Amino acid sequence: MTPSLSRMIAQAAGRLTFPVKWFTYGRRFRYEQPQKGRGREFFQWDIDILGTDSFAADAEIISIAASFYKKLGLTPQEVKIKINDRKFLQEKLSAMGIDPDLTLPLIKVIDKRSKVTPDNFNTMLTDAGLGTEKVSSLLNILDDKDGYKNSEWLTGILNIIKQYGFDDYVEFDPGIVRGLDYYTRTVFEGWDVKGEFRSIWGGGRYDNLTQDVGASQTIPGVGFAMGDMVMEEVLKKCGKFPALTVNKTRVLVTVFSPELFDKSIELSNILRRENTLTELYPDPRTKLERQLKYAARKGIPYVAIIGPEEMEKGLVTLKNMSNGEQKMLQKEQVVKQLI
Amino acid sequence: MTPSLSRMIAQAAGRLTFPVKWFTYGRRFRYEQPQKGRGREFFQWDIDILGTDSFAADAEIISIAASFYKKLGLTPQEVKIKINDRKFLQEKLSAMGIDPDLTLPLIKVIDKRSKVTPDNFNTMLTDAGLGTEKVSSLLNILDDKDGYKNSEWLTGILNIIKQYGFDDYVEFDPGIVRGLDYYTRTVFEGWDVKGEFRSIWGGGRYDNLTQDVGASQTIPGVGFAMGDMVMEEVLKKCGKFPALTVNKTRVLVTVFSPELFDKSIELSNILRRENTLTELYPDPRTKLERQLKYAARKGIPYVAIIGPEEMEKGLVTLKNMSNGEQKMLQKEQVVKQLI
Repeated sequence: MTPSLSRMIAQAAGRLTFPVKWFTYGRRFRYEQPQKGRGREFFQWDIDILGTDSFAADAEIISIAASFYKKLGLTPQEVKIKINDRKFLQEKLSAMGIDPDLTLPLIKVIDKRSKVTPDNFNTMLTDAGLGTEKVSSLLNILDDKDGYKNSEWLTGILNIIKQYGFDDYVEFDPGIVRGLDYYTRTVFEGWDVKGEFRSIWGGGRYDNLTQDVGASQTIPGVGFAMGDMVMEEVLKKCGKFPALTVNKTRVLVTVFSPELFDKSIELSNILRRENTLTELYPDPRTKLERQLKYAARKGIPYVAIIGPEEMEKGLVTLKNMSNGEQKMLQKEQVVKQLI
Repeated sequence: MTPSLSRMIAQAAGRLTFPVKWFTYGRRFRYEQPQKGRGREFFQWDIDILGTDSFAADAEIISIAASFYKKLGLTPQEVKIKINDRKFLQEKLSAMGIDPDLTLPLIKVIDKRSKVTPDNFNTMLTDAGLGTEKVSSLLNILDDKDGYKNSEWLTGILNIIKQYGFDDYVEFDPGIVRGLDYYTRTVFEGWDVKGEFRSIWGGGRYDNLTQDVGASQTIPGVGFAMGDMVMEEVLKKCGKFPALTVNKTRVLVTVFSPELFDKSIELSNILRRENTLTELYPDPRTKLERQLKYAARKGIPYVAIIGPEEMEKGLVTLKNMSNGEQKMLQKEQVVKQLI
């Protein structure tokens, strides 16, 4: 979505108040070979801040992803966000005497590192134009987990994330570069700690994209996209996939007989007015026994019954379906019991 | 969606607990000439009860539509639901000596009545095979607003709707027949009272459809579908289209200077923990004046400021953007003020 978003922002730039905070969630389609965690139809969440080149925006975006992990019940022992800075890498490559034109091709090679063997990776770097010495220097950079300490940008981001309270989820990884051309600085990826899924989502800063697609001036941006399918797999693997409530109904108001249907409608009106999730059994001719079976199968926790005895006394029988207990109550008591 | 739903139900019938209550809401696509209130891409809401031939289900479905009107703020003086019973009409046609095979072709003609002149309508009925006398008898049926009184089915539905409290929204209309083949009994349509839009949504009972598409036995159903585009037009016409909140943010926590950014993060953490919708300005280098302008343009009602004086006193300045009033408060007071 990032290029589409950038086009939208470029077109509307004159009418917008920057910085723009934006998100979208919806169904997406992708024409590629379906595989586990990657389908042709899926849901995706995109979130971006445009109009500021402050790393505070990067820190906020990354913290949003971390707070999402937390809400899902995923722990820092299960999932991480790995971050890096492409500009920082580029400066190191420059210092090694590597031609700036080689940066993007090298980034695409580095992005594939976790998919290939160390030997193959070395060959790929050599093929990209690096001599043995430079390959060795680059490997040192890619393995230096403390490298961020010399980067004001990265320490700045990590410091803010710490103040947001999400530092356990986030770590510097000099090998994270992202394959896309348009990222200019911060890049980050979601990973499961065991590494079973590799990158589970990703994002980064794209300071030139909006101008590249038509804005009359630079409109820097940072954001990420996350799909539902891999997240579902990760949640299942971690045993955190939420149980979906099949039926939220709190009470089934049964209908004792067609003659007493009015009484059941009246009760369901009262319950619905109190925002109690109420089903009124939709066929007054159905035997009570079958209505109770319906409630049991649907997992509805309470059943209300108004038969001739209840009607005469002006009461309602409320049955707790989990323990079978039933009591004859005033309507007001039924309402209270079900809140 | 009804035929697709029926296919789903037919396939899953063995696993389902009937009656099934079902709804869906989502984006739909339609390949036809776009016109006002009818686009190629739109949203549609479908809701159905399957597995009972009780008219209590029809009454519940119609009442759901009426309660939706009510929630939107549309009054019975602005919108109605017109109902009829195809079987009741068919019996009357039968009594007139009209061949049952003519019923469906006649229904399709009757469905077009409101789109043509009375003369053209008469011609269409004649073309469909009715003699002058039968045309006249049929017109009497179609104009008899009290005709429902002889129908147990229709009086039954209207009686339940009355008990639900939605009778002001619902009326019998012998001219409502719906054009679709699969409706078997109750048919109903949403109308604006002024008749500017004609039918704004519709539904009905389809007792044979699920068996027709593969179920091994009859699974009766009743439901309706409602699109967003016409409803939007109706709401606008009635002056009831809800104002959309562009920005729900309750408070912008500004950043006085990069040195004081930590204090602003701390405050926004506290506010967010209390579920106060909080924006932290994402660039600590931006002048306070511009941050206030951002809040004003975005319609954010409150702005929090922590400058050197506030920091020294351990306080926060809270500014009400609508009247310009500002007070220096304890953090706890800020939280309370913003709840």
